[in-house]
Amino acid sequence: MSQYDYAALSEKFESYLSAHQPYGSPDTLYEPIRYINELGGKRIRPVLLLMAYNLWHEDITPALPAALAVEYFHNFSLMHDDIMDEAPLRRGKETVHEKFGRNKAILSGDTMLIRCFDLLLEAGKYKGIGDQLCSLMVKASLEICEGQQLDMDFESLPSATESEYLEMIRKKTACLIGVSLQMGATLAGVETLKAKTLYDFGEKLGLGFQVQDDYLDVFGDARLTGKQRGGDILRGKKNFIYVHTCNTLSSNEQKEFVQSYINAANEQDADPVLQLYLKMNVGSYIEKVQAAFVEEGLAHLSDLQMEGTLPLKNLSISLMSRHY
Amino acid sequence: MSQYDYAALSEKFESYLSAHQPYGSPDTLYEPIRYINELGGKRIRPVLLLMAYNLWHEDITPALPAALAVEYFHNFSLMHDDIMDEAPLRRGKETVHEKFGRNKAILSGDTMLIRCFDLLLEAGKYKGIGDQLCSLMVKASLEICEGQQLDMDFESLPSATESEYLEMIRKKTACLIGVSLQMGATLAGVETLKAKTLYDFGEKLGLGFQVQDDYLDVFGDARLTGKQRGGDILRGKKNFIYVHTCNTLSSNEQKEFVQSYINAANEQDADPVLQLYLKMNVGSYIEKVQAAFVEEGLAHLSDLQMEGTLPLKNLSISLMSRHY
Repeated sequence: MSQYDYAALSEKFESYLSAHQPYGSPDTLYEPIRYINELGGKRIRPVLLLMAYNLWHEDITPALPAALAVEYFHNFSLMHDDIMDEAPLRRGKETVHEKFGRNKAILSGDTMLIRCFDLLLEAGKYKGIGDQLCSLMVKASLEICEGQQLDMDFESLPSATESEYLEMIRKKTACLIGVSLQMGATLAGVETLKAKTLYDFGEKLGLGFQVQDDYLDVFGDARLTGKQRGGDILRGKKNFIYVHTCNTLSSNEQKEFVQSYINAANEQDADPVLQLYLKMNVGSYIEKVQAAFVEEGLAHLSDLQMEGTLPLKNLSISLMSRHY
Repeated sequence: MSQYDYAALSEKFESYLSAHQPYGSPDTLYEPIRYINELGGKRIRPVLLLMAYNLWHEDITPALPAALAVEYFHNFSLMHDDIMDEAPLRRGKETVHEKFGRNKAILSGDTMLIRCFDLLLEAGKYKGIGDQLCSLMVKASLEICEGQQLDMDFESLPSATESEYLEMIRKKTACLIGVSLQMGATLAGVETLKAKTLYDFGEKLGLGFQVQDDYLDVFGDARLTGKQRGGDILRGKKNFIYVHTCNTLSSNEQKEFVQSYINAANEQDADPVLQLYLKMNVGSYIEKVQAAFVEEGLAHLSDLQMEGTLPLKNLSISLMSRHY
């Protein structure tokens, strides 16, 4: 049996997504959905779902509706998070609320969340596991909402420990990556424990993924990331690097750092923060943290004792060294 | 077998809701949910679901999670609609976005929508019909989103025909009332066609219900409705009475009416609009429209050829003559 790699699966997914763009009445509700679907993105979650399914079945066609479901969930959460964060750009283009207005971003987001469940019911129908897939998604999505709320609550606190921050991104980001893999395995018909092992792998991968996202926000190339460089600094958003720095500095240094972080209103102001990060060599710390997550994740993958996990391993490694 | 009336079922529902208020971490996400749940309201949708179930089973306990699910859906839609409409009051109290901020109203609303599916899965688990209940809810909720979008689109149009307006409220309001009854019957284990007949009854009831809501907005007593009297006029919101009036007046009168409707910024400005409504005797027109909907609805109910529909009949009639 052949396993497809990232490029092959993302191509299959893109065609499926294009062929299933939503239309309806009134179309004003569906236009923002097509817009965010067409913005692209890495399609990590649907590809991971397909890779999990592909461990047991060569023909991944039956898993495509579920893959689309997780992408819908992801895009729903982007639409709503972007309103909450007042983010102007997403993937180098206007965010939905900027382009279509806040109300449409709320309502089209709601519609995408509902469509996510619709697609899971479709995916599970043939095997009579629609309820099982929806249950997994419900559990994960409640955690994702909790993670987003933790993230917002966090903004009004001076700082947090690294483990508090990691618990927040576990809920906000890692859960969805975990459940994508778990649903792929569930659809493939494997026993619950094996599917859960893939969840555990995905959770670790998701943690490393978000840490890399935080790294790229600070050090990434805006032309590649599609986001404003140092956007987290300029918006005063506390990410993993901020938390790590706070917890490493002495009490006096910390006060000064927090002050300059809060006051950074333009790229020039952000410079001292960047300089400090460089001096503290945060890049190599991030690498260490990520390596530990990937190692833990791959250990779960080994527990499966399966052939054909190479595409998942390759994707894990490339996600940690990605530039966008 | 005894059938419970509205008072008995709403009491059972209130106790269940109180005993199942959500808590979690962070609690900042769940506090707005408990708040809107405690605001009260008529609990029409959960009670209708229980009444449908009660047609076939005396013990309504197994239907309570599904009843809570439809109330969660309703409250989710109120939270998000109130943001979109910038409504300051709901049931005489501050709306969620006024009290907790817009971001929490978005995210707690999302959480309620997800919990709705969670509760339907719980309700359907025992009989293995979780996927069936979720499918019914998905179908209805997509229509509800379309209805809300139609309502917003409608605001930028000069007017609409009565049938266009009714199609909008069919989607926005009547669908959820219909599907509540349909899910109650489905849970009770009756065949699909019978459950659909209850949907059809509910849809007509929902149309009459919304027309009464529009009537109360204009002529209701604010102390009873918990809403600002003439709120629709002051916000320039086009409701059924507005549409009916537009379509009844001559072209010149219409222009004048539209102008005064748009310009009404305070209660004094709203007075000429109210005077015109009284002169045109819109109250008796509303009564006629409602009577027709109730008649159509009750005809569907008769199609069931069942005993024990009296509580549903009584509720239908009292909803049309209600003052809040």
